[in-house]
Amino acid sequence: MKKALAIDVGGTKIYSAIINENGEIVSEIEKHHTPKTFDEIKSLFEDIIKRHEDEVEITAFATCGAVNNTNDGILGSTGNIAKEYPTMNFKSLSKKPVFVENDANAAAWAEHIIGSSKGMPYSVMLTLGTGVGGGIILDNKLYKGKNGAAGEMHFKMRTDKHRQCTCGSFDCFEAYASGTGLKKTAEEISGNSDITTYDVIGNKDCHMMKKILETWQNDILEGIIGLANIFDPDVVVLSGSMAEFVDINYLENRANKEIVTTPFKVVKASAGNYSGMIGAALLALGVK
Amino acid sequence: MKKALAIDVGGTKIYSAIINENGEIVSEIEKHHTPKTFDEIKSLFEDIIKRHEDEVEITAFATCGAVNNTNDGILGSTGNIAKEYPTMNFKSLSKKPVFVENDANAAAWAEHIIGSSKGMPYSVMLTLGTGVGGGIILDNKLYKGKNGAAGEMHFKMRTDKHRQCTCGSFDCFEAYASGTGLKKTAEEISGNSDITTYDVIGNKDCHMMKKILETWQNDILEGIIGLANIFDPDVVVLSGSMAEFVDINYLENRANKEIVTTPFKVVKASAGNYSGMIGAALLALGVK
Repeated sequence: MKKALAIDVGGTKIYSAIINENGEIVSEIEKHHTPKTFDEIKSLFEDIIKRHEDEVEITAFATCGAVNNTNDGILGSTGNIAKEYPTMNFKSLSKKPVFVENDANAAAWAEHIIGSSKGMPYSVMLTLGTGVGGGIILDNKLYKGKNGAAGEMHFKMRTDKHRQCTCGSFDCFEAYASGTGLKKTAEEISGNSDITTYDVIGNKDCHMMKKILETWQNDILEGIIGLANIFDPDVVVLSGSMAEFVDINYLENRANKEIVTTPFKVVKASAGNYSGMIGAALLALGVK
Repeated sequence: MKKALAIDVGGTKIYSAIINENGEIVSEIEKHHTPKTFDEIKSLFEDIIKRHEDEVEITAFATCGAVNNTNDGILGSTGNIAKEYPTMNFKSLSKKPVFVENDANAAAWAEHIIGSSKGMPYSVMLTLGTGVGGGIILDNKLYKGKNGAAGEMHFKMRTDKHRQCTCGSFDCFEAYASGTGLKKTAEEISGNSDITTYDVIGNKDCHMMKKILETWQNDILEGIIGLANIFDPDVVVLSGSMAEFVDINYLENRANKEIVTTPFKVVKASAGNYSGMIGAALLALGVK
């Protein structure tokens, strides 16, 4: 069975593992802190690849940042990682083939092949973490747009420039539906700038905390309604650490009452914490 | 050269014409008021088809309402037309083939083949009229979603249930970007419920009217930004009677400053007032 060396590159951690065509992790998972400089990151990649490339057909990166349509480089900038990182020449890192995809796109593909959107041709995945990642699969293909940057969940939730988003613009879905968004919503409702997401999540019986969570969840609901009206999908998949705190049945029921398109499911992701690596490996190995 | 009999079905008017593979109208354009009842509408269709079906290969409907993926029937309800209209058996109307597509989707296809998005594989068209229609073309194919209902521009502009939309939900893009939306915005800003869109458009030098138009245009801008971040398109095409009142260069410049995806164009539609019929004919004739 064919295998890929998968490397997941985030702003704080870099993971690697060998993954087979079934999406199974067949090695130890290596974990590293993301080095500060471009050269250190490149050296780490080279080290990982050197030790494993003989065991695999291809190296598959699941990376932060938008990835081009030739799956070999990053478009634009990438936030909290060495600022030269987007210039990385991934193909030069190995004597074997190298494949690169955005981490949220890769995770959506893992759900599509082995997870909770398996068998469903049209899915939109929202990864709710510190930020919000998006992955869109249409007619069983990963949707990338003209240059590869598609699936960014930066559509507006307000138009009065109320809350700035990490992208520089205002009031994007990410600025409300993310963990960071929950903290901001908590600050606004409580009037307390020291409030944390843990305060909210850990005190769900408190009236105010309940209201904060409901407001946050309602923003996620409104975003899902918009996406369902645009895409007429089979399913919206919620993943990421913050997805644990939403009421999936409520979201599915409410959203289906408000859409003008046709009924769809809302489900939690099931491919696990390493779905980015798994999806990148499956894409790199051509598993459809 | 192959030809289609195109019939455009709206809530107030029904048009028909014969259109060739080049998207050229090669007959008189017939115009009718949309009859009140299902039976009258059906009789009108039968009359038009009977008179022309021998001159064409196929009859192509561009209709209000979402159309299924087999292009032969309407999904769900359709607003201001006889309520049984969605049950129409289009195929039974002619002894020759019949093809049905949503009017906004058809118009987007006309722009793609002969209009302002020609040569661009990824386009989103917004038809700004009394309501807002949407048509999405991805990788040179009309995007329809799992059942055919995709491309509904009912994503949210606010989350505080401020303005009800014709769809029953609140604060959809359509409720702000449409002509009806402009009137509502004018009412809110002026405090005058008798104000009309003509008052706004006809008095652009008036400070308040200018502010109303700017607010309306800003809502359109925010919607375009969201769509560009979701789709990474080549172009967003604006059509419909209300598209005359936007500053296309402003929208393109501002939107490109705020997106996280890659640069895109904003253009006005150029396929003309009958683009729905033209697009339906081109789709029915298989012109790609």
